[in-house]
Amino acid sequence: MKDKILSRAKELFSHTVSLRRDFHKYPEIGFMEFRTVAQIIEYLRGLGVEVKYGEEVINTSEVLGMPDDQNIENARLRAIADGADESLVRSIANGGTAVVATIYGKAGKGNKTVAFRFDIDSNELVESESPDHLPCAQGFASVHNGSAHACAHDGHVAIGLTLAKILSENTDYFSGKIKLIFQPAEEGVRGADAMVAAGVVDDVDVFFSGHIGISAKNTGTLFASTDNFLCATKYDAEFFGACTHAGLKPEEGKNALLAAAQAALSLHAISRHSAGASRINVGVISGGSGRNVIPSYARIEFETRGINSKVNAYMKKRAEAIIASCAMMYDVEYSLNCVGNAESFEPDMAFGKEISEYARSTGIFSNIIDVGPMNASEDCTAYMNRVISRGGKATYMMFGADLASQHHTPEFDFDEKVLSDAVALLALLAIKYA
Amino acid sequence: MKDKILSRAKELFSHTVSLRRDFHKYPEIGFMEFRTVAQIIEYLRGLGVEVKYGEEVINTSEVLGMPDDQNIENARLRAIADGADESLVRSIANGGTAVVATIYGKAGKGNKTVAFRFDIDSNELVESESPDHLPCAQGFASVHNGSAHACAHDGHVAIGLTLAKILSENTDYFSGKIKLIFQPAEEGVRGADAMVAAGVVDDVDVFFSGHIGISAKNTGTLFASTDNFLCATKYDAEFFGACTHAGLKPEEGKNALLAAAQAALSLHAISRHSAGASRINVGVISGGSGRNVIPSYARIEFETRGINSKVNAYMKKRAEAIIASCAMMYDVEYSLNCVGNAESFEPDMAFGKEISEYARSTGIFSNIIDVGPMNASEDCTAYMNRVISRGGKATYMMFGADLASQHHTPEFDFDEKVLSDAVALLALLAIKYA
Amino acid sequence: MKDKILSRAKELFSHTVSLRRDFHKYPEIGFMEFRTVAQIIEYLRGLGVEVKYGEEVINTSEVLGMPDDQNIENARLRAIADGADESLVRSIANGGTAVVATIYGKAGKGNKTVAFRFDIDSNELVESESPDHLPCAQGFASVHNGSAHACAHDGHVAIGLTLAKILSENTDYFSGKIKLIFQPAEEGVRGADAMVAAGVVDDVDVFFSGHIGISAKNTGTLFASTDNFLCATKYDAEFFGACTHAGLKPEEGKNALLAAAQAALSLHAISRHSAGASRINVGVISGGSGRNVIPSYARIEFETRGINSKVNAYMKKRAEAIIASCAMMYDVEYSLNCVGNAESFEPDMAFGKEISEYARSTGIFSNIIDVGPMNASEDCTAYMNRVISRGGKATYMMFGADLASQHHTPEFDFDEKVLSDAVALLALLAIKYA
Amino acid sequence: MKDKILSRAKELFSHTVSLRRDFHKYPEIGFMEFRTVAQIIEYLRGLGVEVKYGEEVINTSEVLGMPDDQNIENARLRAIADGADESLVRSIANGGTAVVATIYGKAGKGNKTVAFRFDIDSNELVESESPDHLPCAQGFASVHNGSAHACAHDGHVAIGLTLAKILSENTDYFSGKIKLIFQPAEEGVRGADAMVAAGVVDDVDVFFSGHIGISAKNTGTLFASTDNFLCATKYDAEFFGACTHAGLKPEEGKNALLAAAQAALSLHAISRHSAGASRINVGVISGGSGRNVIPSYARIEFETRGINSKVNAYMKKRAEAIIASCAMMYDVEYSLNCVGNAESFEPDMAFGKEISEYARSTGIFSNIIDVGPMNASEDCTAYMNRVISRGGKATYMMFGADLASQHHTPEFDFDEKVLSDAVALLALLAIKYA
Repeated sequence: MKDKILSRAKELFSHTVSLRRDFHKYPEIGFMEFRTVAQIIEYLRGLGVEVKYGEEVINTSEVLGMPDDQNIENARLRAIADGADESLVRSIANGGTAVVATIYGKAGKGNKTVAFRFDIDSNELVESESPDHLPCAQGFASVHNGSAHACAHDGHVAIGLTLAKILSENTDYFSGKIKLIFQPAEEGVRGADAMVAAGVVDDVDVFFSGHIGISAKNTGTLFASTDNFLCATKYDAEFFGACTHAGLKPEEGKNALLAAAQAALSLHAISRHSAGASRINVGVISGGSGRNVIPSYARIEFETRGINSKVNAYMKKRAEAIIASCAMMYDVEYSLNCVGNAESFEPDMAFGKEISEYARSTGIFSNIIDVGPMNASEDCTAYMNRVISRGGKATYMMFGADLASQHHTPEFDFDEKVLSDAVALLALLAIKYA
Repeated sequence: MKDKILSRAKELFSHTVSLRRDFHKYPEIGFMEFRTVAQIIEYLRGLGVEVKYGEEVINTSEVLGMPDDQNIENARLRAIADGADESLVRSIANGGTAVVATIYGKAGKGNKTVAFRFDIDSNELVESESPDHLPCAQGFASVHNGSAHACAHDGHVAIGLTLAKILSENTDYFSGKIKLIFQPAEEGVRGADAMVAAGVVDDVDVFFSGHIGISAKNTGTLFASTDNFLCATKYDAEFFGACTHAGLKPEEGKNALLAAAQAALSLHAISRHSAGASRINVGVISGGSGRNVIPSYARIEFETRGINSKVNAYMKKRAEAIIASCAMMYDVEYSLNCVGNAESFEPDMAFGKEISEYARSTGIFSNIIDVGPMNASEDCTAYMNRVISRGGKATYMMFGADLASQHHTPEFDFDEKVLSDAVALLALLAIKYA
Repeated sequence: MKDKILSRAKELFSHTVSLRRDFHKYPEIGFMEFRTVAQIIEYLRGLGVEVKYGEEVINTSEVLGMPDDQNIENARLRAIADGADESLVRSIANGGTAVVATIYGKAGKGNKTVAFRFDIDSNELVESESPDHLPCAQGFASVHNGSAHACAHDGHVAIGLTLAKILSENTDYFSGKIKLIFQPAEEGVRGADAMVAAGVVDDVDVFFSGHIGISAKNTGTLFASTDNFLCATKYDAEFFGACTHAGLKPEEGKNALLAAAQAALSLHAISRHSAGASRINVGVISGGSGRNVIPSYARIEFETRGINSKVNAYMKKRAEAIIASCAMMYDVEYSLNCVGNAESFEPDMAFGKEISEYARSTGIFSNIIDVGPMNASEDCTAYMNRVISRGGKATYMMFGADLASQHHTPEFDFDEKVLSDAVALLALLAIKYA
Repeated sequence: MKDKILSRAKELFSHTVSLRRDFHKYPEIGFMEFRTVAQIIEYLRGLGVEVKYGEEVINTSEVLGMPDDQNIENARLRAIADGADESLVRSIANGGTAVVATIYGKAGKGNKTVAFRFDIDSNELVESESPDHLPCAQGFASVHNGSAHACAHDGHVAIGLTLAKILSENTDYFSGKIKLIFQPAEEGVRGADAMVAAGVVDDVDVFFSGHIGISAKNTGTLFASTDNFLCATKYDAEFFGACTHAGLKPEEGKNALLAAAQAALSLHAISRHSAGASRINVGVISGGSGRNVIPSYARIEFETRGINSKVNAYMKKRAEAIIASCAMMYDVEYSLNCVGNAESFEPDMAFGKEISEYARSTGIFSNIIDVGPMNASEDCTAYMNRVISRGGKATYMMFGADLASQHHTPEFDFDEKVLSDAVALLALLAIKYA
């Protein structure tokens, strides 16, 4: 069985690569993954597995940081123009770009449920146009200006679909139930809570997820489990002032732009915390209407992180005071909304050890580490904490890959060899635990 | 003659009002006034007067702060959708939204040239939607979201066209040549230099321009000339850093957003100047691509002003040092481009006195002041300084009007009675001097 | 009489110069002018004129910005070390460094009271040690490190004492009463209100004061009256946080230093006012106790100014909001105290004209201007507004002098010729009006 | 032997406490510890041990952050007034407040050298005056305003002297040489490099140092070795502008105060580093001369820290760019001087284990941990890295104590029981290794 799975994964390598490159070419940002979801659904249906999507698998009322209706509608139109099935796209509610496939084993009367989670959204950044950038050289660079797969989620989807293919071909080898969870909007850590709220992992005994790259920067490396998940909170702050002619009556203006600029600077100056890593980033700013008008409106999008919930709570408390004080400083009104949330996670060291030993026995990866650091945030922790709280087991792996550049940079790319390695290991784990 | 002109101006009042309201409804920002220009051209052609436009009257290579091609093309498409003649719109080059009409007197063999200048662009702001706002109540509020006539240029165009109509009907009363200059992009003080460079006032003996409202805030008030023009410079600053994952590798980012925010704050802290009024405004900021990405790009649009060229030079010098230092602070690259320029102007007190005495003799305005303050910037000074440097005379008037709110605010509106008063006075001045 | 006065002023020139240089050498800052006051009292007593000082002429409970007891005591000790009479110094209460001399005319039964006011305190700055600096070259530079007469108050005292000498020699020429007011703490505009509160000008019919230099920068120039007095308010802001070890527990600190630094920057960014000149200056900052301790205390000393009380009120309102918001931003407590106040002043143009005509008749000054600008603040306005409110007349003159450098700079020095010119004119005015 | 040492340490408890309280009452900051050093020398001489001090044991030309001559002289005068021997105080050069005692064993012909290092300086902060603060209640609170032992160095000196006493009584138990190093200016990490440069540990085989409290916050706890030493750099930045009258000529000023304030804020906004802990603190700011003078001078004292030299190098590089850019922003000159330096340190885990096992055998401490975290900086790392580089062994221990408040806070105090426990363990270690 093992050899069969390993050779099938290798055989499908070019198939997995072509899937990955297709998703790479048509990146879609969080909650607007209409083409991505339509492709996933059609692929899974083609395998004959059970497919649920939209409000069946995500509680759209719990979604954080939902884009506005106009942007969502534009995304639907673009997906259709990019070849997605129109009726399928139209059947997906706002915020409903989530899919869950279920594959039932036929080996016996098992009752274990094993879940795998794959995130599907792209980043908001402009991909490199350098001829040295492989996606350019090979013609699969993003055709959507301002969106790019710079975090390897394209690879995650390709792994997930190939995994579905292999498992659907090998149902004789397992007796339980396998769920493949395709989640929107991991960027901004916005999608997981709403899928958890829809109950998608309430029946799960063993949960696997993972990431290509991040701290495992060489092909052949595997982290069997991961720690140092940063707790994160995502905020939008808006400032509402009063505009006036900047030459005639500057004193009558209430300058929302300066309040936002001050907030950006002051947020970045929140003191370090002695309990461990913290992060702050104001990722987006915009404000003002015209050069000679005192700006009456401005907004920032920012995030806080902490190595644990205490550190993040400190960051949040300071951030909230800063936003309020900047509004006061410029005599403007403000609003502050939480639009994303990621929990921390304590890895189960015993289960990690078990996985690492099993992985070693498969010979797929040459350098296996029991536990490696995330040093970033992942809303995957929501599923894992849920599964563990109900008595299940969960681990988050890292599939090492040589990287062309850091995650979230225009030149990001990864060694595609990782794709078949990850597929092979996940397929064996599915069979082992289901 | 005088009574005939006065009664004709009154007779045309509702015509002038309907012109103004049409322009108000379809506001277009600088260098994108395609519908506005098409309407002006067709109206003037309907009067049978000589009309030149585009590169004949504006040196498009001298234009400051030209929008990008995509925005200009979108503006053309919108103008056509709003009913502008397509072939006319297509005949206007980028930056060429300028018109000059010439009307020749038949009273004899005069050789005087009298020019009037009207600015035609709108502001970039969102008009009030309050039912108390007259344009809403009367159904002529802006249908272009983000653009609004909040500085009375709609009134200026209406005055100019009605003036053309009356003068074209009364060519027997004057012997010289009358030029009506319709200028784009006064907001941002970007259009005048390029029209002056095209030579539109090189043959002008007497030059008139003016503004509804500003410092003359009551209907019935006239400033025969204006001082306290603020010298102004308009800049775009861009900052170019390096993006990175805000959680994984914050130290590798080069934060362009913080450089821009710091620049905004530091610019506003430039010290006052003892020689008189100065102004600084960062009117627009934008930066960053995603919440969890260290921002690699940001930009600000700002302006400096000074009561004279020395004070503005001081502001410019400090601003330039600040932009450079903010880039240095965050280890980012930057560019700083001048996109607008307005000179100062010393009014000709004798000519102002002459105009004020003549205006008194007409009885049109009840409260006539020899010279009033501008306290703002106007690129009209470029024409006036040019005319005076060649031996001509020039004045800038203010046509007082009750205002609903300050210029450049969403609720701005003016008492339309000023329209026929201004038309009447300008027509009489045209006949007197041409 | 006139010639006698003129020649006597000239004769006393070197005497006046030596007085000025003595005061220059021993500068004392506001409310600590113990040696200065002791010298003034002894000089006046030597002339046999009536002398009052301390709480008889200044309401010490109304004093703004009183130094602390320790500093005052140190100043007393230094004054005694510098040769001041110890019992006299000890007799002056805290805040009581004010003197009023009265000289009674014997020419008849006049009942006019004419007052002259001279400010006596020095600046807090380090005088130039350059050999090109005349006080250094001539050996009368400040011997008090950190204090210097860089605003010509040393000259004012010398003029006042010489004036007393001449008038006491010429009591036959006038019939009224002449009051010479020597005021502490004009720097910081702290002394005048308290002397006005003590009633020192409640009996005054005609009031004169003035300044060497400021806007009259050439010897021979006289401004007969002055406008453009900036309204000013002086504040001390203190921030109270919590200290902690900067390495061990940075998150537990409440950083008062950063609150003060932010306040300094934000205060300087208060928007300009369209109604005219405004000023802001944070002149002093201090905070923190050690490099590796999060600072728990910091303070700033600042001032706002406006061309009139409305503009200054705007500055004050904005400043107060900024201080509060900076405290909020860093979660620290604060206090904000007003420690100085200067009113605006509208000159009496008719009286100014009268003075300028009289001054012309004396031939003392070669270039006499009716009214010149102050462009700065002076608490002398408190006396003048008081005198005028009770029906008297008042003017503030400028005695032009060639200046080595701007006021309040280390190299400040003035052409001493102005001293005898000012003495002569003031003596003649005293005789004319008393 | 062990029991004898243990009981002697207990016997001397009240002696050690009285030493500690005496040093507590007369705190002296770095390089000004004249009374402290005089007391140490006299005490050691009283024991009959070899004593070296001043330039024999510290290379004063290598001293970082030396106070100015005037402050040092004032400190000498105060020490004499506080009872220190005048000729001894006068014999200590500037920067020479360091002492090394050597005690020779008589048990045989050993050639091992064992060193102990004690830091002796106080903090710059104002001690609590609360009656709940034990030093107040017991009458040994600081009598030097602005200085306080808030980091337990008073306890370290008391331990060191008692250790000398016990070892000098027990030279029969060891055969090697014991050096007791009393170091100035650990606050600011300024003294160690200069003592290392003088060669004081070049003959050392085994080196011990340690700290009361820090991360070991309960009496009875011992860390046998310590990691997480933060690499630190201490800087002074000065800004040199140009002063001018803040009302008359604000535009002519070059504002050093704002440059310093901006630097303070921008330094605190240096981005976190993903490789681990970093710290930044601007601990002191001062600037400006008078409220109405544009400030021409300002300074800040700050420090950077990093979990390793790479992180600290990042902090330093960013800090240097920020200081330069702030000077550029305000058109002022600047200087930036390094005044302190602390290296990182990798503990020798095997030696730590050896010490912890031995400590357990003594029964002195109830809770012994092999290695605990420092999370702060210590220039002791300079000795340790030197000793290890020459083949020796070194460890840094923490002597746990119940603390009244965090280190470097006004209310800091520790449970004095730790004193005799530390003395006992160190004496046994000296005998064991020498």
